Amino acid sequence: MIALLARGQKLASLGARALHAGVQRDPAFSQLSDKDLAFFEQLLGGTSGVVTDSDALEPYNRDWQKKYEGHSRVALRPRTTEQVAEVLRYCSSRRLAVVPQGGNTGLVGGSVPVFDEVVLSTGAMNKILHLDEVSGTLVAQAGCILQALDEAAAARGFMMPLDLGAKGSCQVGGNVSTNAGGLRLVRYGSLHGSVLGLEVALPEPMLPSGPAPTPASAPGGGRVLDLLRTLRKDNTGYDLKQLFIGAEGTLGIVTAVAVQLAPRPASVQLALLACPSFEAVTATLRSARRRLAEVLSAVEFLDADCSALATTHLEGVGNPLSGEGGGEGGAGRGQGDAGAGASGRGSPFYMLVETHGSNAQHDQEKMEAFLEAAMAEGCVADGTLASSEAQARAIWRLREGISEALVRRGAVYKYDVSLPTAVMYDLVTALRQRLEGAGYGAAAGVRVVGYGHIGDGNLHLNVSAPRYDDDLLGLIEPYVYEYVARHNGSISAEHGIGLMKANCLSYSKGPVAIELMRRIKGLVDPHGILNPYKVLPKP
Amino acid sequence: MIALLARGQKLASLGARALHAGVQRDPAFSQLSDKDLAFFEQLLGGTSGVVTDSDALEPYNRDWQKKYEGHSRVALRPRTTEQVAEVLRYCSSRRLAVVPQGGNTGLVGGSVPVFDEVVLSTGAMNKILHLDEVSGTLVAQAGCILQALDEAAAARGFMMPLDLGAKGSCQVGGNVSTNAGGLRLVRYGSLHGSVLGLEVALPEPMLPSGPAPTPASAPGGGRVLDLLRTLRKDNTGYDLKQLFIGAEGTLGIVTAVAVQLAPRPASVQLALLACPSFEAVTATLRSARRRLAEVLSAVEFLDADCSALATTHLEGVGNPLSGEGGGEGGAGRGQGDAGAGASGRGSPFYMLVETHGSNAQHDQEKMEAFLEAAMAEGCVADGTLASSEAQARAIWRLREGISEALVRRGAVYKYDVSLPTAVMYDLVTALRQRLEGAGYGAAAGVRVVGYGHIGDGNLHLNVSAPRYDDDLLGLIEPYVYEYVARHNGSISAEHGIGLMKANCLSYSKGPVAIELMRRIKGLVDPHGILNPYKVLPKP
Repeated sequence: MIALLARGQKLASLGARALHAGVQRDPAFSQLSDKDLAFFEQLLGGTSGVVTDSDALEPYNRDWQKKYEGHSRVALRPRTTEQVAEVLRYCSSRRLAVVPQGGNTGLVGGSVPVFDEVVLSTGAMNKILHLDEVSGTLVAQAGCILQALDEAAAARGFMMPLDLGAKGSCQVGGNVSTNAGGLRLVRYGSLHGSVLGLEVALPEPMLPSGPAPTPASAPGGGRVLDLLRTLRKDNTGYDLKQLFIGAEGTLGIVTAVAVQLAPRPASVQLALLACPSFEAVTATLRSARRRLAEVLSAVEFLDADCSALATTHLEGVGNPLSGEGGGEGGAGRGQGDAGAGASGRGSPFYMLVETHGSNAQHDQEKMEAFLEAAMAEGCVADGTLASSEAQARAIWRLREGISEALVRRGAVYKYDVSLPTAVMYDLVTALRQRLEGAGYGAAAGVRVVGYGHIGDGNLHLNVSAPRYDDDLLGLIEPYVYEYVARHNGSISAEHGIGLMKANCLSYSKGPVAIELMRRIKGLVDPHGILNPYKVLPKP
Repeated sequence: MIALLARGQKLASLGARALHAGVQRDPAFSQLSDKDLAFFEQLLGGTSGVVTDSDALEPYNRDWQKKYEGHSRVALRPRTTEQVAEVLRYCSSRRLAVVPQGGNTGLVGGSVPVFDEVVLSTGAMNKILHLDEVSGTLVAQAGCILQALDEAAAARGFMMPLDLGAKGSCQVGGNVSTNAGGLRLVRYGSLHGSVLGLEVALPEPMLPSGPAPTPASAPGGGRVLDLLRTLRKDNTGYDLKQLFIGAEGTLGIVTAVAVQLAPRPASVQLALLACPSFEAVTATLRSARRRLAEVLSAVEFLDADCSALATTHLEGVGNPLSGEGGGEGGAGRGQGDAGAGASGRGSPFYMLVETHGSNAQHDQEKMEAFLEAAMAEGCVADGTLASSEAQARAIWRLREGISEALVRRGAVYKYDVSLPTAVMYDLVTALRQRLEGAGYGAAAGVRVVGYGHIGDGNLHLNVSAPRYDDDLLGLIEPYVYEYVARHNGSISAEHGIGLMKANCLSYSKGPVAIELMRRIKGLVDPHGILNPYKVLPKP
């Protein structure tokens, strides 16, 4: 594959292969011409909006994991919705494939070109359009960084209803397009509930046929779907915005988003807990639901290997309960990441339990009652309550750093599944045994680790290895997908389908559902120019 | 219109006219034949599933307000999803129009035949399929009554995430199909967030064209869309279930629903408050949001006329703050419903503020702090806290009874709009003045009243009159819709579009959105047999 030739040194040294092996470039798509580039430069006001330099193109062509890489010759950076619509009109007429890209922080190859698709970056569309303090609603262009929006909301006493590890670089349009879940879904719900409105640019005009009552001069030539309202309730016809939440840019390009903000909590409590078994983890979850109830804002878990990975591979990250890493001394331990489970102070599982509330005294009383009960029941062997914002940040860094630590360690096969909570960790154990039995155990440098949003039934299963290895992959897939399907789970809880799982969709969706998706795609994007090869399986 | 001839006495005495005047029966639809009836009787196991007796048909042909009436010759009562799919297959092949009907508690004519459509009632599909205590998820057939589901959930410590006045007769399939909002959306969010899965029967098979990898023996012949999962998170392709939430049965018939239950609160506090002005109402709302925060579960308001209507027209309903009605003596007051605003103890506005929490002491402290502050600020002139479940039920009856009281008083024009909270009541005042100026004031027996879910920005605007009157209607519409559109509101916050507002959709949705809706309808239901004349405007 041509893509491989352009891959960076790091990727090649891990033995990576084209993860889109088997996908062929659709010959119906045109090749980019100089005339196309001239059109884009004229439309987007010169070269600032049109990136063609090969070094400058690299971050548009590759994901941060260095796992997916395309070879697009151009990345466009429009500033307005009308420009996005005009790019789509042009690309549709020219049959140029387009890959929409936000912060490019995804994990399934959804925002990276597979071949030579035109990259349409929303990065320059980063204006906050409106923040209403009375209703707590925010309207922003798609390219706004999640953390910037949260900071703007914080200044008025609000918070964004979603938070995730990539908040410093992910964009809200990408969050919506991938239906990002994150750390506080257990409290604030999914984007299907908190997104109030969207503006979407469509690849084809959506105007009545026949003698048109709509003038041809409709905004964006009928390609701008304006659903950008900030109403909490609006039952006027089909809730079209929902189609684009989680469509991963295959149906349209989200250009602006209206979100219901949550009030910023006056009181935040955070506990890090050590649990002696996975059964103890699930019992602690049930207890937290009952005793923390309306103030519960996050319930996360990680296994001992995850803790060891984060404290070993990230500077300044420590686990106060295991004694691993932390502070200036952490990085210098040099004891590897063999897992703390067997060590003196270590525990096989850790949990983060957080509350958001309006009354610190009430919240502390609830948290103390919860901790006392959990320890009395033997579900929690040890625990620590963050006593400052700095301590809380340090504890969150342990959890949020796992993904980055895995990438630093080497090759990583990532799975993001929903499973019934009680049996969730069984998959980690079963896969670990399966790989060990085939010679891919700890001695071979392979780690099978589990962490995630246990409050939502969402497991992040990761296999860390010294290098990418087709034989190893063959042991993991389709085993993981089959396991999940057998337990009525989801093969993608929050990461989406992207390129990685497009041909695995049938593990979670039946033929009628997939056919309906296909027809909706055909209705909105008949030439298939938007993010081809992604989400839907090959026909 | 033929429909009028069959109308009941009560309706005729109010001077009702065909509210679907201007809608013509689509000649593309077939007339029901004896052969069709024979097919249905064979399919549904004899006459118990096929209603043809004219008296027995009346409740299927007419809404509870007696405002919409069709003249269907048959109502079908299937018991299984496969039977629903088979009815749709047959009706599609015969070009028989079908109106899906749940509890028939809607307010916009969505669940009543307009002409002679076949009624497909989900009433016999009333089995709870699964209730998982660990994950708090419920799976039920579409015909289950909301209250029955809530009682089943209560037995395991949970509650349904929605509650509305019609809970004793509305069905969960209808709740989902109309995206019902109700009293506690402010806390538990909309059904777009709390519905985890759906099963939907489609009018046409959704199977891949060409050499089919799917056997023709697919369940329901490819007409059953099985999205009936109970996962909190599932990002595998387009979230198709969202299309059917609020589609009012025009895209498919919801046959089963999976819902995320909420924990049943250990502590419920309810306050009835009297506010001296609408500004005081909105200030009290802001204070409740800040001080009750995570325990706030409902914020409702009603004006003095609504209070007077409920206490006058409903037995045993009283307002402890105004001294109107209540107990055995209430019904005998005989002082009419002229509004308590001008009376000695009355107040122009009342609010219900409710909390759901896990700790009664904490919740009481929060509620007391909120009430003290609201009274100190002059926003609340008087108030009462329910000290028992019976008192709480009595207070809720005042609020929930308004709709029924309006119907008992006579003719009623109902509007259900979203507007910015601060200016919400201005519409009531403006319309009242407009009608008074045209001779439709109190002396003419006309009342313009407002109440609703102020916590969600949702106003129920009602015009009560002695009888239906085209001149009066001409003063109300399109005035109300134009007002709402001018303020970027919604012409239907929660009631839906149905027959009533199909030709008004453009007040809330632009041409691109309406065209996309139309094409999705054409994709799923190319012969347009499902709930015709509803939701989408005439082309």
